[in-house]
Amino acid sequence: MKLSQLASELGCELLGKPDLEVAGVAGLEEAGPSDLSFLADARQAARALASRAGALVIPAGWTPPEALPCLRAPEPEVAFARAVELLRPAWRPAPGVDPSARIHPSAEIGAGAHVGAFVAIGEHCRLGPGAVIHPHAVIYPNVTIGARLVAHAHVVIREGTVIGDDVTLQPGVVIGGDGFGFARRRDGSYAKIPQVGRVEIGSRVEIQSNSCIDRGSLHATRIGDGSKIDNLTQVAHNCELAEDVVLCAQVGLAGSTRIETGAILAGQVGVAGHCTIGKGTIITAQSGTHGDLEAGKMYSGSPAFDHADWLRSTATFAKLGELQRQVRQLRQKLERESR
Amino acid sequence: MKLSQLASELGCELLGKPDLEVAGVAGLEEAGPSDLSFLADARQAARALASRAGALVIPAGWTPPEALPCLRAPEPEVAFARAVELLRPAWRPAPGVDPSARIHPSAEIGAGAHVGAFVAIGEHCRLGPGAVIHPHAVIYPNVTIGARLVAHAHVVIREGTVIGDDVTLQPGVVIGGDGFGFARRRDGSYAKIPQVGRVEIGSRVEIQSNSCIDRGSLHATRIGDGSKIDNLTQVAHNCELAEDVVLCAQVGLAGSTRIETGAILAGQVGVAGHCTIGKGTIITAQSGTHGDLEAGKMYSGSPAFDHADWLRSTATFAKLGELQRQVRQLRQKLERESR
Amino acid sequence: MKLSQLASELGCELLGKPDLEVAGVAGLEEAGPSDLSFLADARQAARALASRAGALVIPAGWTPPEALPCLRAPEPEVAFARAVELLRPAWRPAPGVDPSARIHPSAEIGAGAHVGAFVAIGEHCRLGPGAVIHPHAVIYPNVTIGARLVAHAHVVIREGTVIGDDVTLQPGVVIGGDGFGFARRRDGSYAKIPQVGRVEIGSRVEIQSNSCIDRGSLHATRIGDGSKIDNLTQVAHNCELAEDVVLCAQVGLAGSTRIETGAILAGQVGVAGHCTIGKGTIITAQSGTHGDLEAGKMYSGSPAFDHADWLRSTATFAKLGELQRQVRQLRQKLERESR
Repeated sequence: MKLSQLASELGCELLGKPDLEVAGVAGLEEAGPSDLSFLADARQAARALASRAGALVIPAGWTPPEALPCLRAPEPEVAFARAVELLRPAWRPAPGVDPSARIHPSAEIGAGAHVGAFVAIGEHCRLGPGAVIHPHAVIYPNVTIGARLVAHAHVVIREGTVIGDDVTLQPGVVIGGDGFGFARRRDGSYAKIPQVGRVEIGSRVEIQSNSCIDRGSLHATRIGDGSKIDNLTQVAHNCELAEDVVLCAQVGLAGSTRIETGAILAGQVGVAGHCTIGKGTIITAQSGTHGDLEAGKMYSGSPAFDHADWLRSTATFAKLGELQRQVRQLRQKLERESR
Repeated sequence: MKLSQLASELGCELLGKPDLEVAGVAGLEEAGPSDLSFLADARQAARALASRAGALVIPAGWTPPEALPCLRAPEPEVAFARAVELLRPAWRPAPGVDPSARIHPSAEIGAGAHVGAFVAIGEHCRLGPGAVIHPHAVIYPNVTIGARLVAHAHVVIREGTVIGDDVTLQPGVVIGGDGFGFARRRDGSYAKIPQVGRVEIGSRVEIQSNSCIDRGSLHATRIGDGSKIDNLTQVAHNCELAEDVVLCAQVGLAGSTRIETGAILAGQVGVAGHCTIGKGTIITAQSGTHGDLEAGKMYSGSPAFDHADWLRSTATFAKLGELQRQVRQLRQKLERESR
Repeated sequence: MKLSQLASELGCELLGKPDLEVAGVAGLEEAGPSDLSFLADARQAARALASRAGALVIPAGWTPPEALPCLRAPEPEVAFARAVELLRPAWRPAPGVDPSARIHPSAEIGAGAHVGAFVAIGEHCRLGPGAVIHPHAVIYPNVTIGARLVAHAHVVIREGTVIGDDVTLQPGVVIGGDGFGFARRRDGSYAKIPQVGRVEIGSRVEIQSNSCIDRGSLHATRIGDGSKIDNLTQVAHNCELAEDVVLCAQVGLAGSTRIETGAILAGQVGVAGHCTIGKGTIITAQSGTHGDLEAGKMYSGSPAFDHADWLRSTATFAKLGELQRQVRQLRQKLERESR
């Protein structure tokens, strides 16, 4: 593809060489003369200048040397994502239903679907057009899904789940497993509280490998439009994620947690039950909270508090033995003096 | 169902309106006039009074207004769990064996079982009556299971596992995967120690989505009667859980951990190998221990210590930069004075 | 098997009773007179002396009583691993392809393979000889694998993956799921960055149940020869593990992490993106780092620092309330005195 055509497809400003043929995409270190590469941040310009890439997507703030053809983009990372789509389209199976798939006669599958080997789809399911359902995905009865679902191998979607458009589920994801609800008897044993709610997932949601979204106990667990959930993450019953929430890998949310729009929970974060995490708030990796967190802030620690304070506290923590020694000396000194 | 009939089914004291028709169950906020709802704690009576619920299950300590029909229960949460069972029975497939299931001729499946599409059951397996085995569950050879197993889609039960009655396995659970046992050679590489033990699971155990119970290295990994294990939890080889143990989501137990009766490990807790966690002890979320913990206490922190002390320590930790500043000032002051 | 024959198979020095018949292997507490057992460490000699084992594998440093037949080994744990292999061989299905397996006609499967029920293997896959592929494993197209793969039930290997010889994947492992790459738009929503790289796994690697190795975003995620990865572990896109790396259960690596040869990350450790963990370094359980860690050291804490310092800091932390009280007293005393 010619660089000029890419510029027009990506909505970028073209700097130099409209006729350059771009054949692929690659990282700055790996790129060759026919590859498009990507500079995320003007502060890393040295890496860009050392690259053998044929052309670069660059941010607005940087002026490249004249000899380096560039696509300047208001949102360079978004533009590069689109370039990858155009230049290295991901593998995608062709439409068609594998004869080994077991689709209940009452289920409706929209036009253009790919249904792979050994897929099982239960009664009264309704899937919109353009679905790609890889081998061994299992959809229990009474599931309703919008257009263009991508469900990878071994995805499980349990009964009654409702999913919007353009949702992608990576391998091994479990949607609608029972919530962890048990009532303790006086003798110390537990009675199961039947989990009869469901899961409702919006549009443009991606949930990655082996993550689990539990069904609501009586009502719904909800994942809002545009939210992204990384591998091995736990979303317990009755949680509500608003729009564009990001849960990084191995995050764990206990029951009835509410995460407001645009919040980001980094890897291995934990949130105890019935807490609210405010809009746009960031919780750094391995932190945890058992209380609500305000909107628009950054929190760290377990239990979590203001990130800047946490930086100071952890710096001191690493020398805590020394601090204790100093306090001991002060006490001894004062005791000697007061004698 | 009439409220009087519910009262008798649940063994509750009926307060008002025996003829009220109860059609469903719902949370206090969501309930309508034909729903039964649930007050867990008398301190939340205001929420109950604001509810539109037709009737409530309530604890012994609370006297409702006369106009509000109630079922007073000695164990209100247990009674409500039973009410959910009666009023909103969870979906359950009918008995019958899907023609696509591959059951080895030597395997014995008890009466009344449901065996779903593409289920694979190996040779010499024996399953008790009333099993529900959802599509794509895989049972390796020589597995023995009691009555009323529920195994959801993509459950894997490896060879030689022994399971009691009334066990429920949510989707993606792996029972009997190899333990993580390797012997380090002098050259730094690792030799696999074959994991030839098995897993033994008692009765009334529930293990939730994508959790892993590793087989013993030489002998057994054991999960005691009534224990409940949440999503994405790791139980390593040779662990022994006694009765009614609760492991919340993403807990990780290293090898040969022993958890005594009734202990509760909250989300993301970790226990190092060869430790014993005493009877009834609670470890709060994200805590970890590499030593034994006494019975009947509450522990927090990583490494974990007494919960009340931990509350004090974490309160100070959040102001640790300030504490360090104070100590510095004290030292400077004393130095000035001693000159 | 006679003890003398075992000694010769294991390359051990035989102490006493060459004609002893050894029938099995067992732990020191569980062993009977016909079992071989194992003493890892001379400091635990008391346990060995209390054992009913017929014979023991022992380390070089220990001289057993004359009546106790022993195999003295330079690497006793490695020798015992080999003994387990000989005396209690793990179950392994016989070669043969189940008629229900769906193998694309263009796929090549090496000689002597076992392919279980409902296995799905995509086009242009090439597998070396001696593979054991358990029921329900799914191999997407264009995957290349060396000799003697063991893939347990519900393993997913996505398109384009390259794997060496003697690799074992426990149930539910996902190789090549999409990395977590999204570009944030100015309106707060996210655009997916297509993940078009692949996963490259060396030889003698074992990955355990339900762990996830994400594909590279543009290039490869790499797992070096001999590395061992425990259950429920997350390896993000573009990570590179060198040889003989150990990741214990529930470890999480963010994108582009580099782990050098022989490093050991204990359970629930987290590493932020673009960090390097030096050769042979050990990170203790539940620790985390967002910076590089030097080679050959031991680190602890979140954020992690020198392990010995961490031991001091955590000891003080448990008494931090007391330390704060002491500082307050010192300040009050000095204030009184300076009046």
